Amino acid sequence: MPEYSSMDKTTLKEEYKKLSDAYAQYKSQGLSLNMARGKPGAEQLNISNDMLLSLSPESIFKTSDCPDCRNYGNLDGIDEAKQLFADIMGVDKKNVFVGGNSSLNMMFDTIACMMELGCSGEKPWNQQGKIKFLCPVPGYDRHFGVTGYFGIEMINVPMTENGPDMDIVEELVSSDASIKGIWCVPKYSNPQGITYSDETVKRFAALKPAAKDFRIMWDNAYIIHDINDTPDTLLNIFDEVKKNGNEDMVFEFCSTSKITFPGAGVAAAAASENNLAILKKRYNFQTIGYDKLNMLRHVLYFKNLDGVLTHMQKHRAILEPRFNMVTDMLEKQLSGLGAASWAKPNGGYFVSVDVAEGCAKRVVQLCKEAGVILTGAGATYPYGKDPKDSNIRLAPTYPPVEELEKAMDIFCICVKLAVIEKLTK
Amino acid sequence: MPEYSSMDKTTLKEEYKKLSDAYAQYKSQGLSLNMARGKPGAEQLNISNDMLLSLSPESIFKTSDCPDCRNYGNLDGIDEAKQLFADIMGVDKKNVFVGGNSSLNMMFDTIACMMELGCSGEKPWNQQGKIKFLCPVPGYDRHFGVTGYFGIEMINVPMTENGPDMDIVEELVSSDASIKGIWCVPKYSNPQGITYSDETVKRFAALKPAAKDFRIMWDNAYIIHDINDTPDTLLNIFDEVKKNGNEDMVFEFCSTSKITFPGAGVAAAAASENNLAILKKRYNFQTIGYDKLNMLRHVLYFKNLDGVLTHMQKHRAILEPRFNMVTDMLEKQLSGLGAASWAKPNGGYFVSVDVAEGCAKRVVQLCKEAGVILTGAGATYPYGKDPKDSNIRLAPTYPPVEELEKAMDIFCICVKLAVIEKLTK
Repeated sequence: MPEYSSMDKTTLKEEYKKLSDAYAQYKSQGLSLNMARGKPGAEQLNISNDMLLSLSPESIFKTSDCPDCRNYGNLDGIDEAKQLFADIMGVDKKNVFVGGNSSLNMMFDTIACMMELGCSGEKPWNQQGKIKFLCPVPGYDRHFGVTGYFGIEMINVPMTENGPDMDIVEELVSSDASIKGIWCVPKYSNPQGITYSDETVKRFAALKPAAKDFRIMWDNAYIIHDINDTPDTLLNIFDEVKKNGNEDMVFEFCSTSKITFPGAGVAAAAASENNLAILKKRYNFQTIGYDKLNMLRHVLYFKNLDGVLTHMQKHRAILEPRFNMVTDMLEKQLSGLGAASWAKPNGGYFVSVDVAEGCAKRVVQLCKEAGVILTGAGATYPYGKDPKDSNIRLAPTYPPVEELEKAMDIFCICVKLAVIEKLTK
Repeated sequence: MPEYSSMDKTTLKEEYKKLSDAYAQYKSQGLSLNMARGKPGAEQLNISNDMLLSLSPESIFKTSDCPDCRNYGNLDGIDEAKQLFADIMGVDKKNVFVGGNSSLNMMFDTIACMMELGCSGEKPWNQQGKIKFLCPVPGYDRHFGVTGYFGIEMINVPMTENGPDMDIVEELVSSDASIKGIWCVPKYSNPQGITYSDETVKRFAALKPAAKDFRIMWDNAYIIHDINDTPDTLLNIFDEVKKNGNEDMVFEFCSTSKITFPGAGVAAAAASENNLAILKKRYNFQTIGYDKLNMLRHVLYFKNLDGVLTHMQKHRAILEPRFNMVTDMLEKQLSGLGAASWAKPNGGYFVSVDVAEGCAKRVVQLCKEAGVILTGAGATYPYGKDPKDSNIRLAPTYPPVEELEKAMDIFCICVKLAVIEKLTK
């Protein structure tokens, strides 16, 4: 089939009629399918069930720096957990803070800490008037939620296939001292699955911000989350910032939420000693310490980085066919129509689809009416506003595989319907 | 022996010489004993070890309102955990938010939420200029830490045997709209072990604050933590505030930190629907949800409130002889000397000792030099400043029982030494 835009209206209307019939058939089935959230599926959760046996009444609860993991103490986590996360992130364990069950919560607390205490000798962010954050788009809605909650103005920066457009980032960051930070998902970005190129990471590390208290929020959520045998590689940001004397510019985050259990994993942050000292000023009042038994459970289960990587192969075995199905169906049904574009990621949790401008909301609505829930159109942009109304995030991990196939078929139909509607308006 | 103050200096100096010899003997032993923090001892932690077997790969992870506790979701906890905490606190489960492993963290987040969002239609606390909190003294150092962190001015309110001096509380709260809250540990208060009388609770519930956004932080940390067969009873604050139309005035907190594991328990808050709605405005950005597997672990282990109460009897069996030893030794060694006063608590985690004015720091220092660590003098007061330098908090739970006896003997010697030093100066 040729591109829709090259077809005459009569042909398009015939095509629309055929698609409408298929759509109506699906609609009549009263389906309830969900491709909205990046949640692991039940099969993936089962992989980690044996971790629940890590601890028993006979366990030894003493670790190298904790007399009893069942009791209070160890504000920044137990040494063995720090080492495991240090190995995952490629940093020294003295730069690791192991927290609770949510890296999002650690990012929230980090922003709150900057708001209340500030950093690099500057005033707290909440005493500096209007401040801003750069937001590579499309991006992760919950990042934008955190910055929005704290009243920080968000500025869109377009993503390229190599990461955020660094010309724009460099220009803005070096010229505007009210820009205090940027959100990054540097590997298998949410939603596009893009891994920042070496040059992008080097340019990040070499930034010369106008604001001394500028911070990169390096959310490495998918750091070891490959889904095929051609995984991306990401340069280690901490190695690079050291070369530029910019150690204090980065907070890195990761968690086991998508390694073991999303509701019951362990999260960690990596940062310079200066930055950790600031975070601890706040954490010291916030809590006595996080769940060390859950840290110990993870450490005993995985033993070391090799254990984690072997475990990730099991996730990959489940996820690879799902992602293949999604991108194969996009290829088969939408390729060449000029109705949508997408890229096939090598890891992460999403497939990002850019439909023809002005059609995303309509696609999401059509899908919803046929019983397929997608992430809301606009959710991948600050303030929920996609200026082109184009980006849609597909999350292939959660639904059972037979539901996923059906949902994708409906999605492709809806994309075609919406684009033809627009062309024949 | 008569009161020290009625003895002549020569007799006192003889007494001092004898005590110094005993002190020197202890000092020469190079001891390392600790009565500083309210941590459960190892024997207590063992009680809950079987809870680690609650979950296994064969467990059912679906609960009444959660399709899979291993996955994301349920911001305010699972229904079964809400019900358990509702039964512990005597409230409706719709008024319960189940959080992470730390009630301190929930209190911190609650104050942060009031600072950032405000309540009862008033401006956020951080936009109201100087605000204040009432702090019954002696009290819990970490409460004061939280208010201090947020720059809230703290005003001491003296404790009586029935709770905070309510004449002062009523007068201040009704006349000063900059007073936004009060910290309360209403049952077995930290450190005195005082339970607020019915009249005190009723007067709290009937407060008519000048500030519409005044909040009582009701930290019910020791709600079921009796240590003998004459436990105190506390009126249910939520029943009382309802009678006065004051439902929005209270946040209640509790946790299983001193029921199961201090590092790996579950914390919860109870509040009116209005207040929960405000908290959720913040939590919704802060996290996707807390550790539901740990909630499930607790629910499966305890089954219901009866299960929890039976469990608490095991703690009591361990704690009662320790507390008896501490108060018996105080009685035997310090009674009648006019050197110190104390009360025997029916529950909680501490014995509070008021030594003669101006002697607390010296006692703590003498103890330290003999290898006995106590909570720092002044820690039970805002800003670490005990105006009378008199209060010392003893924590009898953590050290092994034979160490506790030795530590208490040293403590009593140090009290006597410090008081005689003052009288003979």
